[in-house]
Amino acid sequence: MKKVGILGGGQLGRMLLQAAANYPVETYLMENDPQAPAAHLCHHFIQGNITDYDAVYNFGKGLDAITIEIESVNTEALEQLEAEGVEVFPKPAALRIIKNKIYQKNFYAEHNIPTSPFVVTDSMEALKSQVHLLPAVHKLATGGYDGRGVQVINNELELDKGFKEPAILEKKVRIQQEISLIVAVGTDGDTAIYPPVDMVFDPSLNQLSHQLCPATLPEKVFWKVEAIGLNVVKKLNSPGLFAVEMFSDAEGNVLVNEIAPRVHNSGHHSIEGNYSSQFDMLWRIMLHYPLGNTDPILPSALVNIVGEEGHQGPAIYKGLEKVLSIDNVFVHIYGKQQTKPGRKMGHITILSKEKQDLLHKVNKIKHQLFVQSSTQ
Amino acid sequence: MKKVGILGGGQLGRMLLQAAANYPVETYLMENDPQAPAAHLCHHFIQGNITDYDAVYNFGKGLDAITIEIESVNTEALEQLEAEGVEVFPKPAALRIIKNKIYQKNFYAEHNIPTSPFVVTDSMEALKSQVHLLPAVHKLATGGYDGRGVQVINNELELDKGFKEPAILEKKVRIQQEISLIVAVGTDGDTAIYPPVDMVFDPSLNQLSHQLCPATLPEKVFWKVEAIGLNVVKKLNSPGLFAVEMFSDAEGNVLVNEIAPRVHNSGHHSIEGNYSSQFDMLWRIMLHYPLGNTDPILPSALVNIVGEEGHQGPAIYKGLEKVLSIDNVFVHIYGKQQTKPGRKMGHITILSKEKQDLLHKVNKIKHQLFVQSSTQ
Repeated sequence: MKKVGILGGGQLGRMLLQAAANYPVETYLMENDPQAPAAHLCHHFIQGNITDYDAVYNFGKGLDAITIEIESVNTEALEQLEAEGVEVFPKPAALRIIKNKIYQKNFYAEHNIPTSPFVVTDSMEALKSQVHLLPAVHKLATGGYDGRGVQVINNELELDKGFKEPAILEKKVRIQQEISLIVAVGTDGDTAIYPPVDMVFDPSLNQLSHQLCPATLPEKVFWKVEAIGLNVVKKLNSPGLFAVEMFSDAEGNVLVNEIAPRVHNSGHHSIEGNYSSQFDMLWRIMLHYPLGNTDPILPSALVNIVGEEGHQGPAIYKGLEKVLSIDNVFVHIYGKQQTKPGRKMGHITILSKEKQDLLHKVNKIKHQLFVQSSTQ
Repeated sequence: MKKVGILGGGQLGRMLLQAAANYPVETYLMENDPQAPAAHLCHHFIQGNITDYDAVYNFGKGLDAITIEIESVNTEALEQLEAEGVEVFPKPAALRIIKNKIYQKNFYAEHNIPTSPFVVTDSMEALKSQVHLLPAVHKLATGGYDGRGVQVINNELELDKGFKEPAILEKKVRIQQEISLIVAVGTDGDTAIYPPVDMVFDPSLNQLSHQLCPATLPEKVFWKVEAIGLNVVKKLNSPGLFAVEMFSDAEGNVLVNEIAPRVHNSGHHSIEGNYSSQFDMLWRIMLHYPLGNTDPILPSALVNIVGEEGHQGPAIYKGLEKVLSIDNVFVHIYGKQQTKPGRKMGHITILSKEKQDLLHKVNKIKHQLFVQSSTQ
């Protein structure tokens, strides 16, 4: 059996390992926290720091292949492992581009990938000379994650909120829709794309409300999403599983926002919704099997389950029984012992031929299920 | 999180643990072989003998609930655990009936459950006095499993092949169809049945060829299967997940063959084919959640992958790439390191609206995939 390692032990690792048990593969996982969601589902758990060169190198050196479930890993160690013959998904060269927002934006520009206008800044002075780009979003080149290291700057008065460290300043786009496209690339260069996902935002809460797949898109936007998403991933020149997050604007332009070179939240519906899930697909790629079928079995919606505001401590799932009594709903609780406000604690997938049924149940779930703390 | 234990670490445990990772539950597993298919997928692996009283009792005593993936476990220890407040799925009293074929047949007779005519024998003399029942099948009361402890006796000359130990002699039925019904019983007594499964036999090989679900049955057979299957499980008076194996004959009679008080091979298609799989359902029952939806998402077929004749040793899967290139096919390899002739090494599920498509692909898979030994 091939030996395959995963760096990181969160929910992505957990779902990867659920899928791994369909195949003949010996699994290794490195993660600092032995209580992490994925830690108990591998053949070999190695406690270690995925940002440390020696830890990653020693973890990977006897393996056939290695993958990541988070970008903040030691890229140098992965490069050395690749040089020594370990297959790395994605390739460290692609990971380098994606880990640094300046490299990522320059990569789009070099390859004529449509993306929002931007400049690079590395000081407050440099930032203040770019008033013409406002309103804009300032993003640290490295170290930003899930909302950290990102600052909206609407006007000149807000320039002080920006970063002095290397960053990009991106002109704000008037977003019509946010769309994600999951793209698979095999070791032989074969590619497959999943149907696009509509990431529906809740403007009152300013956060993701739910996802719908396949996305309902104007035809010209649909074709652009598929063409641009596939093109940008091909240019990365790496086998693996990728999520391309895009915006469309009122004029029907499609712009690439960012790429995740790994399984992604916007692909979780594929576990039940598609013949080959994103997790199944990554195993097929890493084990050199043919790519899977990305066709939907049924249309789907997905709701993330996040920790409720004002609740921090041991997690309890209020209303879970009600959600579990809905006929066409699939529950995924990630097994995190502690909740905190906004923390991703699970997700729910709904399958239905009827869009109204999907939306009705999205709404129902959002009003019935709450992650709270048992000590509050 | 509730603590739930599983006795046995084979493929049923493996698939149970894949499903467990959707729920907040801490999993324990006891099994002699640390390389068993399920051994690496639990939070806590305890090496031990599931037939030993002390081992089972000590394993179970701190748990909230315990279940089995094989019947040959220490029932006395489970009874003691139940008396001390551990929930046992199925109840030890039901397990006692099922583990002994004499008790099982008497149970059917007592509750007017249709089953083939039988007598109990406990010596060669007793057997030889039952010539009028021939042709018949002689089955040891205990210790039989997967073909062992079962002997067909066609005529008087073959009586010497029978057992002297306690056994049942069952009149041979002229089987029209073999049907399995998966039945779920919640802790509150709520029940749910899955669509019946048609177990299609290959007469030339005298073994299961494939399964189809939902089964195509004459209407009166269909109603009998559902009514008899639900009735017999209700009479067992235990929460849990059950498979009722039945025969129909040319006259449309339906007879119960045997019951498995656990997840079962005949329910594996439900992983992809039904909204709530048999594994998902058992977790719902054990965690006191509402029963899941047993409706099919699409009709399905299932092919078992067994070790090829003449091959014993480290397993290789010849033709797996071809099977993985079929669009609507789901592969489950159990991760057993050694193959031997007839050993269950995995299964393949096919989903399709078209029965012809299911059958076409069943055939394709059976001619393409072979489990061989790498040392042969």
